[in-house]
Amino acid sequence: MAKRELPIGIFDSGVGGLTVYRALHERLPNEKFVYLGDTARVPYGTKSLTTVERYAVENARFLARHGIKLLVVACNTASALALPAVRRAIEAPVIGVIEPGARAAVQSSPHGRIGVIATEATVKSRAYTRAILQLAPRAEVLERACPLFVPLAEEGWADTEVARMVAEEYLRDLRLAEIDTLVLGCTHYPLLRRTIQSVMGETVRIIESGEAVAEQVARLLEEEGLAHAPVEKRARSLCDDLDHFYVTDAAERFARVAERFLGRAPKVLEAVEI
Amino acid sequence: MAKRELPIGIFDSGVGGLTVYRALHERLPNEKFVYLGDTARVPYGTKSLTTVERYAVENARFLARHGIKLLVVACNTASALALPAVRRAIEAPVIGVIEPGARAAVQSSPHGRIGVIATEATVKSRAYTRAILQLAPRAEVLERACPLFVPLAEEGWADTEVARMVAEEYLRDLRLAEIDTLVLGCTHYPLLRRTIQSVMGETVRIIESGEAVAEQVARLLEEEGLAHAPVEKRARSLCDDLDHFYVTDAAERFARVAERFLGRAPKVLEAVEI
Repeated sequence: MAKRELPIGIFDSGVGGLTVYRALHERLPNEKFVYLGDTARVPYGTKSLTTVERYAVENARFLARHGIKLLVVACNTASALALPAVRRAIEAPVIGVIEPGARAAVQSSPHGRIGVIATEATVKSRAYTRAILQLAPRAEVLERACPLFVPLAEEGWADTEVARMVAEEYLRDLRLAEIDTLVLGCTHYPLLRRTIQSVMGETVRIIESGEAVAEQVARLLEEEGLAHAPVEKRARSLCDDLDHFYVTDAAERFARVAERFLGRAPKVLEAVEI
Repeated sequence: MAKRELPIGIFDSGVGGLTVYRALHERLPNEKFVYLGDTARVPYGTKSLTTVERYAVENARFLARHGIKLLVVACNTASALALPAVRRAIEAPVIGVIEPGARAAVQSSPHGRIGVIATEATVKSRAYTRAILQLAPRAEVLERACPLFVPLAEEGWADTEVARMVAEEYLRDLRLAEIDTLVLGCTHYPLLRRTIQSVMGETVRIIESGEAVAEQVARLLEEEGLAHAPVEKRARSLCDDLDHFYVTDAAERFARVAERFLGRAPKVLEAVEI
């Protein structure tokens, strides 16, 4: 198979990376994807650097063995903590979600007052702050961990009064700081977007890294001559369901939660040990 | 070392088992304990039978290698799914939390209308229903999964309006069914006891398995001649802090969350790979 016909690999700690998959799938309709959700070891956001690195490298190697032309690390925590280790571990180019998200935030922010919400581990790493300051040294960045957002999204409580009260508590400092742009620095948070937007107020610009990542992937594929040849629309719609999804545990639960993210359960879903 | 001088092993998927440790420590002040929290792979409650079995057996073998006279599986999910596998894997006697909790519920319940709240995996296993019906075949048992209770307890939101609203939603069916006794079938839930009691009403009897497990362990130690000789009170208070705590990841986070469970951070805390 020609290299450009190979799929794009995506991994996440679990189901949240499907928000990134969806953005990639929409932006690059000719590409095939292979997705790995590490559901046996989710969540990563409360774990240590060493452990996140180990898990990320194992996931990357699993996908590399399946033949991919490019790897997207959809998990913000793994992107923040483990990108250098993943790049050393496999040959294919690797794209994380931090840098594209930071770039989108800087481009979107009118006054450079940028908030970032993410897991404990991502916030502790300061990866977003570093990435934003590299692009806009005069920006002001405020990071806040929102640990309850992940279970609220996974359990389908995203649009409830409970989610709103939790968001009001977590986002209080960011509102007081009058940020103009807010990065959703965890793949689960887009599910809570409506609640977050309504708590922050309509003028605050919300950045999901999914779209920014899809743009960067599209650019890289073009530059490297790795883009898949255009696929005829009818054939494409037949292929739509051929993207392959692997999970490390509890496929049934993944399928159920995936419906909240994609609006449909994945067709090809397989449980594997890593 | 004489066998009865060996410590009692306890493992849990994470920090929640400290509620069981506390009950054991109070009931058996002469005993030493060694605790393992599998924080690298927490939570178990959303995972499959095969994975929970594998993790539980690995934890049991780790503690067995350290020399224990008895093992308490403090995690309800591991007790519900993996007790037979754990018993095959090690020589020491093994006590889970389901049977003692079921027994305490049956003894406490005036009319045999018993509710059980637990993780998804525990509820799906029907282990509590089976254990209760074995003791009281005419009991009515209603089980309900409460997945958000674990993160609420871990993040310190136990006594908030948010926890109350979540509890009202989860416990609605149990209130309508007019249960007289409610088993807290997850080691994290005792932290939410006040909220749960207030939502259920003061007449509903709440069962924490920690105390019931401590009673059963005390009985077994006596029967088998394994109880530690009485320790002089002054020596005991010096030894209090000698119980050994292992975690598989993120010791710092464990220490912090442990304070919510024990009122103090563990003195001897070590991160290990399993």
